[in-house]
Amino acid sequence: MIEQSALTQLARIVGKENLLTTPEDLACYGFDATPRLGRWPDAVVKPGGPREVSEILQLANREGFKVVPRGAGNNLSGGSVPIQGGLVVQMNRLNRILEIDTENLTALVEPGVVTSDLHAAVEAIGLFYPPDPGSMTVSTMGGNVAENAGGLRGLKYGVTRDYVMGLEVVLPSGEVINTGGKTVKNVTGYDLTRLMVGSEGTLGIITKILVRLIPKPEAKKTMLVYYRSLSDAAETVSSIIAHRIIPPTLEFLDNVTVRCVEQYIHAGLPLDMEAILLIEVDGPSSVVEEDAEKVVEVCRQHKAAEIQLSRSAEDSLRLAAGRRAALPALARIKPTMVLEDATVPRSQVAAMVRQVQQIADRYGLLIGTFGHAGDGNLHPTIVCDERDRQEMERVEKAVDEIFRAALELGGTLSGEHGIGLSKAPFMTMEMKDAGMKAMVAIKRALDPNNVLNPGKMYLDDYAAGHGARGEVLSAAPHGSVLGSGF
Amino acid sequence: MIEQSALTQLARIVGKENLLTTPEDLACYGFDATPRLGRWPDAVVKPGGPREVSEILQLANREGFKVVPRGAGNNLSGGSVPIQGGLVVQMNRLNRILEIDTENLTALVEPGVVTSDLHAAVEAIGLFYPPDPGSMTVSTMGGNVAENAGGLRGLKYGVTRDYVMGLEVVLPSGEVINTGGKTVKNVTGYDLTRLMVGSEGTLGIITKILVRLIPKPEAKKTMLVYYRSLSDAAETVSSIIAHRIIPPTLEFLDNVTVRCVEQYIHAGLPLDMEAILLIEVDGPSSVVEEDAEKVVEVCRQHKAAEIQLSRSAEDSLRLAAGRRAALPALARIKPTMVLEDATVPRSQVAAMVRQVQQIADRYGLLIGTFGHAGDGNLHPTIVCDERDRQEMERVEKAVDEIFRAALELGGTLSGEHGIGLSKAPFMTMEMKDAGMKAMVAIKRALDPNNVLNPGKMYLDDYAAGHGARGEVLSAAPHGSVLGSGF
Repeated sequence: MIEQSALTQLARIVGKENLLTTPEDLACYGFDATPRLGRWPDAVVKPGGPREVSEILQLANREGFKVVPRGAGNNLSGGSVPIQGGLVVQMNRLNRILEIDTENLTALVEPGVVTSDLHAAVEAIGLFYPPDPGSMTVSTMGGNVAENAGGLRGLKYGVTRDYVMGLEVVLPSGEVINTGGKTVKNVTGYDLTRLMVGSEGTLGIITKILVRLIPKPEAKKTMLVYYRSLSDAAETVSSIIAHRIIPPTLEFLDNVTVRCVEQYIHAGLPLDMEAILLIEVDGPSSVVEEDAEKVVEVCRQHKAAEIQLSRSAEDSLRLAAGRRAALPALARIKPTMVLEDATVPRSQVAAMVRQVQQIADRYGLLIGTFGHAGDGNLHPTIVCDERDRQEMERVEKAVDEIFRAALELGGTLSGEHGIGLSKAPFMTMEMKDAGMKAMVAIKRALDPNNVLNPGKMYLDDYAAGHGARGEVLSAAPHGSVLGSGF
Repeated sequence: MIEQSALTQLARIVGKENLLTTPEDLACYGFDATPRLGRWPDAVVKPGGPREVSEILQLANREGFKVVPRGAGNNLSGGSVPIQGGLVVQMNRLNRILEIDTENLTALVEPGVVTSDLHAAVEAIGLFYPPDPGSMTVSTMGGNVAENAGGLRGLKYGVTRDYVMGLEVVLPSGEVINTGGKTVKNVTGYDLTRLMVGSEGTLGIITKILVRLIPKPEAKKTMLVYYRSLSDAAETVSSIIAHRIIPPTLEFLDNVTVRCVEQYIHAGLPLDMEAILLIEVDGPSSVVEEDAEKVVEVCRQHKAAEIQLSRSAEDSLRLAAGRRAALPALARIKPTMVLEDATVPRSQVAAMVRQVQQIADRYGLLIGTFGHAGDGNLHPTIVCDERDRQEMERVEKAVDEIFRAALELGGTLSGEHGIGLSKAPFMTMEMKDAGMKAMVAIKRALDPNNVLNPGKMYLDDYAAGHGARGEVLSAAPHGSVLGSGF
């Protein structure tokens, strides 16, 4: 609970018009894009700058309420759900692109800038900001940094982390730090910039972001390739890399996903293929033509059933439409969608997809798998009905096995969505005791009162002595909050 | 002091043959490549694996001695100097390339692998590990990671940090953590990998390193370009980038450096030029030709006095010889060389070089400036004589002003050499109070007994209440240890 006196002070800090407390407002900030997780905050504020954020955090430390930063709220792991109540700090008033420096190739933005707005602004002058999370038309840069968002171009261009050069961050204490800068090289002090990237709002609230830009690739060519056999598709992926071509995009859809997509968009996709690859190459025009030819040749060698090649930008969009429709297409099938982002080394993609299919069979579930084959970042997506208790039990078991499979194949729990609440119970599987201890020590060092985004990333649970997976299941915040607050 | 009983235990842990305690041995480990800094350790060990490193650190915590990890000892900021005595942990027995994974494009190496050995191993099979610190033929991968080493290719390819995918690290407590992995995307937990990169051996001892590889560029072209005016050279740099060409190498030598180089290698370099640029473009052959033509055109537009273009790999080496000789050429002039790596945004390179020249004039010093113009990472190098007390006082003042100038131009204290001891007194200029506090909090959280590489990065001084630059000067470890132990 936030005391009335504290609410009065919050109104003074951000202005009355930027403090929300009605049930209608609180309901809107009680969930994000993650299914089955929610709790109303006690209040919501929309600060206008770092000084206000700093005052809010100082007040929170004094008054003992919790603070949960929020961007567009399209998080997929419950990261922006105020699971212990308290104050949601909605950052989208800070939405200016402050500078695009064409000499140093940097952009300075506020956290509320929508990712695709930054894309448009820099591409208009021949520059390029590569990270392109699936939600880029709604997601904000602050959220992208807090979650270290990935996207379709990760294989060639890397992820958000690889483009953040500096940050202005309000620490949990309310102190403001500036990290990094416009120099390509900077080794002064610990890398606080990258400690903040992907810390999911648990270590600081980001108020300014300096990102690196690169020249916009001159040309691009898109290919859609059908395979009767999953193994052939996987071997194509490895073989393209072995030919020393690194396509920005190398996407995969399995048969279940293709069927759902075809039902949805009627694009004439074949229903008897085990896998479809969407491949894009980019770069100088001459290289793109050459690379595209080589890729086509490799696909043929690996028994591609059909290859469609783009001849125009429109063509590219048309070919990519199926992949872009994967998520909504799966979402239509049943009321609930449990979307994971278990990630494996590229060489293990086929093995992972097969294991997911076996898990689906074993638990009688419909799981569509699609995602970024090139960087091993897969999205096994379980379509289910949260009102069906028995089915949801099977879903939980399947999710557990999917994570185990990914880790056994040398992978990770999360490639790009973050841990938040939904993957918290699985953290010790990957981080082990020593890793969790180190994380908890860092969190306590910077946030001794645990003011900022508590309950996330399994930090509190681990600190409270929940070590092993077994203990956790019964006491998981994940399990205990289903539907609460709604 | 390390007690005799602790030495006995160390001998048991690493084997007698890997424990060094004679004065002859200790003298060798009492300094690194940084001038004017040194102190003998009490003992040196050469562990054979992570388990031994872990036992060493556990012992150090129990017995209260300090531990300083060391790679090739070619650090330029005093990072590997055991400034409080204790135990040097020499990591070069661990020097195996454990795996080159051609499918996932990764290499797993031990910390003692020499950087250029890794280059050779991966280039032999068409792959590429871009970071190329100047000392790459002696430096080790562990040292590169601990210091986040840069090099000549930073502008296009980034630095060590951009290639580290995962680490095995022994924490100060002796616990072993594994961070990251072979997946391109990984957002599980805090980015402990990059917290360790550049932490200068203060947060952990690295025992395994997983790095990302890329395909080896097909072709390369080298240009050596002479300028009568420094401004023209600087404008060329900006103009190349404005033409959306990102050369891997864009190096700069000022007139002082060119004169010293010519005295040394007699390559026929002109002595009346204000600046020389060494430019390399790489990529697919067709693109390289095109880019080289564009670069030549840009150089002409900006009044280049002469342009030499490589026609072969031998030619490339010949053209680069002057740049590679810069450091030894300056080192010959006088007995002491104070080499800095103050770094500014690329757009400020000309302003920075001019300020360094003014500082040199003001203090009657000879300062040669060379370095990585493309990424703003300059090496103003003061040639002096440490026996000349008066001159050294002027050197200290000049260094102070160089750092101030870099920071005022939006730069950083260190682009690639690290803070260590030599730049420690300047830390608060850049990190400010809140940044130093955050660093100290993290250090204490992971190393409560301050066992690992104490006295570095200004952490202890800041924790002891030395806040401002003024207080520090008189009590700096930098000042107090000149020549001690020798």
